[in-house]
Amino acid sequence: MIFFEYPFNEHIRAYLRLEYLLDRFIFSMNSNDVRLHQVAVSTFFDIIDLVERSDVKGAILQDLEKQRLFLLNFRERSGVDQKSLELALVEIKKISSNLATSPKPGNILRENEWLNSVKSKLLVYGCAAQSDMPSYHFWQYKTEKERREDLFRWFSYIQPLSESLKIALILLRDSGSFFDCLAVDGAYKEMLGGKIYQLLRIGVDYKIGVFPEMSANKHMVWVRFFFQDENFKAKSVIDNVNFSMSLCK
Amino acid sequence: MIFFEYPFNEHIRAYLRLEYLLDRFIFSMNSNDVRLHQVAVSTFFDIIDLVERSDVKGAILQDLEKQRLFLLNFRERSGVDQKSLELALVEIKKISSNLATSPKPGNILRENEWLNSVKSKLLVYGCAAQSDMPSYHFWQYKTEKERREDLFRWFSYIQPLSESLKIALILLRDSGSFFDCLAVDGAYKEMLGGKIYQLLRIGVDYKIGVFPEMSANKHMVWVRFFFQDENFKAKSVIDNVNFSMSLCK
Repeated sequence: MIFFEYPFNEHIRAYLRLEYLLDRFIFSMNSNDVRLHQVAVSTFFDIIDLVERSDVKGAILQDLEKQRLFLLNFRERSGVDQKSLELALVEIKKISSNLATSPKPGNILRENEWLNSVKSKLLVYGCAAQSDMPSYHFWQYKTEKERREDLFRWFSYIQPLSESLKIALILLRDSGSFFDCLAVDGAYKEMLGGKIYQLLRIGVDYKIGVFPEMSANKHMVWVRFFFQDENFKAKSVIDNVNFSMSLCK
Repeated sequence: MIFFEYPFNEHIRAYLRLEYLLDRFIFSMNSNDVRLHQVAVSTFFDIIDLVERSDVKGAILQDLEKQRLFLLNFRERSGVDQKSLELALVEIKKISSNLATSPKPGNILRENEWLNSVKSKLLVYGCAAQSDMPSYHFWQYKTEKERREDLFRWFSYIQPLSESLKIALILLRDSGSFFDCLAVDGAYKEMLGGKIYQLLRIGVDYKIGVFPEMSANKHMVWVRFFFQDENFKAKSVIDNVNFSMSLCK
């Protein structure tokens, strides 16, 4: 099963991009390879750009508070595991408070001139070549352990954001349930009647060999399936496609 | 020993950047990991941009011809292994001719709309998130083998360039010999008296913990050594530094 997601608004779009960048950063940071450490470094800069240009921090804080208030409704309700509920409430509170009091991730570039200069070089293709950045080339000769320590130190600037985004996305994705759908001749429409959702999720069996193009607003969800021909050109699917869909609040 | 290089002109600068990008591309292409395959894809686009914007192909062809003519001088000369010389001459001729007749690498983007659209998305930070590119997300679910086959097919557009650059750089680097130098109080000057070189190479023992900033033209080579303090700030070295240097034609 492959999952495809479509954000109903810009702040959820920023969440999904940030989630992708954080996954890439953490994976590369944890490797031993110097080339991957460079992926970590440039992804780190992408994360800072994204966070500086959109108020992801504020949006996550709001979302976590909304989810916390929602969970509060289940207190004292029968059939609800009160112990797990309390643990979840405490966890959300702790993570929100860490995020609220954390410094701006962009501060690291204001504090560390060298990182700032590396950032501007990495923007130009090929400029990470040793001839363009002797000091970066030198950094790459540090041991894996030393480089990883540097990466971890820089990561500390975005760690509260990373942890709270993780929880916010788990709560968001858990807020919807998958149901079966059929796209007749490859197309599917669902009327929403003005209900507000945040995230559309589509699950398709990989074996069918198709991918969806989605669009959605408060009135309607629209899904159209495509396949790629041998030149990777997208072609409309004309058969019926079984898939599953979830609408998350 | 760490080697640092400084190009005397823009076409050698393009060589060094291209060498770095090709190393990154081939390393990532040969891995199994989907995240590294994405590094391969975006590095591939960087390579095409670099090649389209500078006449690297023309410069390599000229350089290989120059080196071939230089090697021709050694024909029939005593003390020179004639068999190896002939092999080298044939190899250079073959590689030059492959490069001369190869199509422009940028053609692949004109022929493959999908790759072109992926290229424009990858330029924006975070836009490789699955929500922004469903068709690319789908491609990432192919098996490692299938993805590598795609990457190899795209690589075929830049392979002649890759092979000839490798030879051109071996010949260029072999054209100089290292000699010992001493940077008194961290600084070194060498007068060149108008002699034309293409590449300056510096070798420093990593244990000394310093890196050079270099500049060079036909009159002079100038090297100044730095170290990084705990905040990565470059500080001038005030001790003497032993290093080795090579000037390549």
